[in-house]
Amino acid sequence: MFVVMRQGATEAEVLGVKSRILAEGLTPYEHAGANGTVLAVVGELAKRREALIAQFGVLPGVERVTPIQRPFKLTSREFHPEDTVIRVLDAVIGDGGLAVMAGPCSVESREQLMVTADAVAAAGATILRGGAFKPRTSPYAFQGLGIEALRYLSEARDRTGLPTITEVMEPNQVDIVAEYADILQIGTRNMQNYSLLNAVGRVARPVMLKRGFGATVEEFLMAAEYIVAAGNPNVILCERGIRTFETYTRNTMDLAAVPVLHMLTHLPVVVDPSHATGKRWLVRPLALGGVAVGADGVMVEVHPDPDSALSDSEQQLDLAAFAALMRDLLPVHEHVRHLHDDIAAGASGVAAPGNGDGLSRH
Amino acid sequence: MFVVMRQGATEAEVLGVKSRILAEGLTPYEHAGANGTVLAVVGELAKRREALIAQFGVLPGVERVTPIQRPFKLTSREFHPEDTVIRVLDAVIGDGGLAVMAGPCSVESREQLMVTADAVAAAGATILRGGAFKPRTSPYAFQGLGIEALRYLSEARDRTGLPTITEVMEPNQVDIVAEYADILQIGTRNMQNYSLLNAVGRVARPVMLKRGFGATVEEFLMAAEYIVAAGNPNVILCERGIRTFETYTRNTMDLAAVPVLHMLTHLPVVVDPSHATGKRWLVRPLALGGVAVGADGVMVEVHPDPDSALSDSEQQLDLAAFAALMRDLLPVHEHVRHLHDDIAAGASGVAAPGNGDGLSRH
Amino acid sequence: MFVVMRQGATEAEVLGVKSRILAEGLTPYEHAGANGTVLAVVGELAKRREALIAQFGVLPGVERVTPIQRPFKLTSREFHPEDTVIRVLDAVIGDGGLAVMAGPCSVESREQLMVTADAVAAAGATILRGGAFKPRTSPYAFQGLGIEALRYLSEARDRTGLPTITEVMEPNQVDIVAEYADILQIGTRNMQNYSLLNAVGRVARPVMLKRGFGATVEEFLMAAEYIVAAGNPNVILCERGIRTFETYTRNTMDLAAVPVLHMLTHLPVVVDPSHATGKRWLVRPLALGGVAVGADGVMVEVHPDPDSALSDSEQQLDLAAFAALMRDLLPVHEHVRHLHDDIAAGASGVAAPGNGDGLSRH
Amino acid sequence: MFVVMRQGATEAEVLGVKSRILAEGLTPYEHAGANGTVLAVVGELAKRREALIAQFGVLPGVERVTPIQRPFKLTSREFHPEDTVIRVLDAVIGDGGLAVMAGPCSVESREQLMVTADAVAAAGATILRGGAFKPRTSPYAFQGLGIEALRYLSEARDRTGLPTITEVMEPNQVDIVAEYADILQIGTRNMQNYSLLNAVGRVARPVMLKRGFGATVEEFLMAAEYIVAAGNPNVILCERGIRTFETYTRNTMDLAAVPVLHMLTHLPVVVDPSHATGKRWLVRPLALGGVAVGADGVMVEVHPDPDSALSDSEQQLDLAAFAALMRDLLPVHEHVRHLHDDIAAGASGVAAPGNGDGLSRH
Repeated sequence: MFVVMRQGATEAEVLGVKSRILAEGLTPYEHAGANGTVLAVVGELAKRREALIAQFGVLPGVERVTPIQRPFKLTSREFHPEDTVIRVLDAVIGDGGLAVMAGPCSVESREQLMVTADAVAAAGATILRGGAFKPRTSPYAFQGLGIEALRYLSEARDRTGLPTITEVMEPNQVDIVAEYADILQIGTRNMQNYSLLNAVGRVARPVMLKRGFGATVEEFLMAAEYIVAAGNPNVILCERGIRTFETYTRNTMDLAAVPVLHMLTHLPVVVDPSHATGKRWLVRPLALGGVAVGADGVMVEVHPDPDSALSDSEQQLDLAAFAALMRDLLPVHEHVRHLHDDIAAGASGVAAPGNGDGLSRH
Repeated sequence: MFVVMRQGATEAEVLGVKSRILAEGLTPYEHAGANGTVLAVVGELAKRREALIAQFGVLPGVERVTPIQRPFKLTSREFHPEDTVIRVLDAVIGDGGLAVMAGPCSVESREQLMVTADAVAAAGATILRGGAFKPRTSPYAFQGLGIEALRYLSEARDRTGLPTITEVMEPNQVDIVAEYADILQIGTRNMQNYSLLNAVGRVARPVMLKRGFGATVEEFLMAAEYIVAAGNPNVILCERGIRTFETYTRNTMDLAAVPVLHMLTHLPVVVDPSHATGKRWLVRPLALGGVAVGADGVMVEVHPDPDSALSDSEQQLDLAAFAALMRDLLPVHEHVRHLHDDIAAGASGVAAPGNGDGLSRH
Repeated sequence: MFVVMRQGATEAEVLGVKSRILAEGLTPYEHAGANGTVLAVVGELAKRREALIAQFGVLPGVERVTPIQRPFKLTSREFHPEDTVIRVLDAVIGDGGLAVMAGPCSVESREQLMVTADAVAAAGATILRGGAFKPRTSPYAFQGLGIEALRYLSEARDRTGLPTITEVMEPNQVDIVAEYADILQIGTRNMQNYSLLNAVGRVARPVMLKRGFGATVEEFLMAAEYIVAAGNPNVILCERGIRTFETYTRNTMDLAAVPVLHMLTHLPVVVDPSHATGKRWLVRPLALGGVAVGADGVMVEVHPDPDSALSDSEQQLDLAAFAALMRDLLPVHEHVRHLHDDIAAGASGVAAPGNGDGLSRH
Repeated sequence: MFVVMRQGATEAEVLGVKSRILAEGLTPYEHAGANGTVLAVVGELAKRREALIAQFGVLPGVERVTPIQRPFKLTSREFHPEDTVIRVLDAVIGDGGLAVMAGPCSVESREQLMVTADAVAAAGATILRGGAFKPRTSPYAFQGLGIEALRYLSEARDRTGLPTITEVMEPNQVDIVAEYADILQIGTRNMQNYSLLNAVGRVARPVMLKRGFGATVEEFLMAAEYIVAAGNPNVILCERGIRTFETYTRNTMDLAAVPVLHMLTHLPVVVDPSHATGKRWLVRPLALGGVAVGADGVMVEVHPDPDSALSDSEQQLDLAAFAALMRDLLPVHEHVRHLHDDIAAGASGVAAPGNGDGLSRH
């Protein structure tokens, strides 16, 4: 449930309500937005719901209590109507601009990374990606350079000024990865690895959460909810294709998920056409498609010599192809950036997103 | 197999090859393109394949025989490298421009159709859609006005100059629908209704074939192959979403299918965001997405008063929303139209699409 | 809505209610079961629902009017609590016994069919299957022997005493197929070919409807509803696998659909492990699985020499393997036949299946 | 690749081959079966493959080197033709008998567990299940009693003699869970949590690995390969339903996966109809279906009062229903247990499973 405070409610009144929430064995989360403060109340409400609404509704400073029963709360636009904007070094994600994350699938050597980093920076990428710990279907496949790769990423950041993003695969790795990298990535296979979600929820680094290839939009948001509830509000969602019966592409990119997520949540949404399609020549059209439906950013795998890559060689762009892609993306982005504003406005406006949107209530 | 004739082969040489193909109990299909004539040979080859390649290869005028074994032949770019361009009245589909098919899900009354037709024509639509015979999941739901609707469509065409498209549901309806409408539509549930495919393959009207919601790209092309093999080369493919585990949208729009189809076939490809999403507010972003990935056209359901529509009321745009959509689509289309040329060029160029494209061979 | 007549209501009272239903522009369907007569009312009720319930509720002989809003009505257990039992020659489907339909994918020659028919009859099959008109993904593949095959099927029936089942692909074929065959089959690709469903709804032959490989259970029942509403109550449902991301088997056999259908409908349910798996060695375990979950019958493709078959050679059993299968099936069937009774009893009992069963209401 | 040693090869010869494998930077895994010793060679072979086959082929004691390229090696029947049989206390899994794992979804209290344990033991269950750490879609839902639950499980084992199985969710929990429980379970969402797979690969406890709801059979085996490669050969596979478009059941139980897995791997296979269907009344038919297709065991959720359960209340059986289920399962199992032997024999026999089985090679 959400306790909406009156415009101009005092700090003491907000504290008073939070105390009462805690006294009931529940947890209050506060969002102080342009239209005033909202407190999300989470915990086992069950049969007390009606009684608590009545009780909280009469506390000083409270305007109303809304019994919203969506399963995701802190990630919902109802709690936090304004877009979340994430800033890392000079990169910004979620402010209406286009973030471009580019770099190799795996960091394979110092030289491979520096060459790629220089090239993607020159072409206009805003964030450098590179895998250090690689989740591989086979235990016998290349598993990444590990900490050595983290050091190279750190050096590449110093050299180019681009913040870096890399995947973290287990709770024990979170601290070391957070020491070297600027954004932590949770991979598709770990989207519901709750221990890991809790662990990245406790560090001061933005997290990019990739959608599970078998996960619904609702489950995707519930996974993000774990991270935010654990204390980290800076979550970037990444649509990277879902598994369907179609086998021509590796996965089926669900581009409708981008506006759907923008309606339901305040978190920024990025698309990953490299993993979604698994085919190099499809990256350009699908990156454009992702921008056209309103994505806040694009993640693209780039390698100086894709055919010799140690992982995902079929889907990485070479440096020239990435530069060409950048020239296509920006003008399309300019033409559609007003679209997102309309959806976000609709979501937080009169037509309450809690109704008629096809999501389950819990 | 394809028999590629020499540049400058004479008509007599072509005829000679066709005779030999027929003499073997096989059927030749001829495509006279800019780079010379190609004959597709269809029928049961099985174990004769090698012998026939040798035999045909030495006939006068033959440059080479290529043992391509894809299941689709006449619809493939190997047979027909140039884009198929379809012209109906003043509308053109497949020439690099953007075709826009708009109109109500069902024709519900003369007035409803005329109001919609005038509005979509004024907003820039190039083709008028409207359902006369409606395939409905329930036998008790509104099944369309039938022939009465066909007459209204005909009147609306005379009034606006827009060619019309409407669905045909069974072989016996093909003649009457072809009498009134300019383009025949095959619905998603009938994509593998082979009797119907054969029937529309024998009329002199372009056919728009919607992808089955459970069909792969390869099966989609095999269904188009039925129509072309029956004698009708003017087939438009329509991606309208596939069925997946995601339930927020009615279907999952497979936008990667657009460039994939452009690589594999010369037929134009249109997207239908109304049926793909089932939600009015998603039509705009997904129409833009479809244009961005290179679609030759967009089909959109438009109704003067969507909330009172007798079918699909959740997904139809009102007249003002359609006009707004048109203002968004054209500039995005301008920025991406060169993309399709690259894919088509790649498909018919050195990197033979027969290799490494992930499709099965039969 | 269902109008439930009092036990002992007179024929005149039933006629009186039917007249009132017709007078409202609606259609009454009557089911006279062991517990009295029920009238299903179909047509556009919309806003009149409440008024009609009140109106019909006070007519002479009416016990109650139940405003059930499931999309399927005549096929539901609420309308028709007893199992539908279908008898064709000596074969019975739906009485608690095990119907076994066996024979070649395609009838390829007189001899191939007679050899197979004799062998499956000797092994205990109760119905002979054989394709005459074949729906094929490719227009260039073997399309069946057509009427010649129908004549062979007819001869094989006379010879073995087994009733025959064969597929009908278009409305124009229904009469000729019904002349020669005992049961008409609708294939998976035609499950939503509404013209065909209406056509087989008007003949005096049982129809076996195969589930569309992309269709939900609810859509499957809606397709059966078309046939029953058109006048043919003898519909057999066949689960034959659905399309999923798993590619090891051709389709994924949804065995849970068998008890689910038994709960929701009175129609008999058969399984087809040959098409569901596409692999010969999986037919035996999956046929057993189908029987164990309560299927009323099994359809199996059998060929004297599967490796030389003109279609589906990978999945047909040879004669010896079929005989071995029969020896496995019957004892398992004996052990589980009480299961189905429990589900049917639960479905028509106190725990009304209209509640908490996860299906949508329309 | 597999190095097959001659029957009667000496220990010294085997050691000699292993040394050479290690000297090449590769890892040898040894299986000493009834037909002699096989060494699986894993690591990056790539272009050396041919050279290594020639080199190893002439070593003393080597019969042949087979260049099998399946992605799973140690879990394949080619490496290990005999069934893996797992023994824990008095329970046996994989010997042709039927293992039955029963107990509550979550351990909710000491009393709830003891009552359930006594009842399932009396009814014939062979293993006691109970959740201590619960992976939940929502961060606000009941997360399990943790270590307290582990202690109750331990007490219940002492009381009933049944070995216990419980889920472990992160690497850090493995030691504590292994201290209290007899079998460790990896849940469906963690099937590709590679850190966790490695961690359970290093303890001396059998592991039951649940199939990811979005995972193919091949990916399922690759996940098991991680555990075996890390040193733990005692892995039980559990089919628990995959995600499809069908929404009537929670998941679609893929019963064909059971014989497919028996063909491909020597590991035992168990089915979980509770999670696959999500509906109490479907557990009985689907458990029977699982047994009929050859499963080595069944896992069933049982609760003394399902309606008051803190998790999965919709799918748990009460004590009486579980006892009734046990009475159904055993006779069906008796009738089908020879089936599995045939498949296993086929898999390890002449018709090498490496050919024509539809799986990819890497």
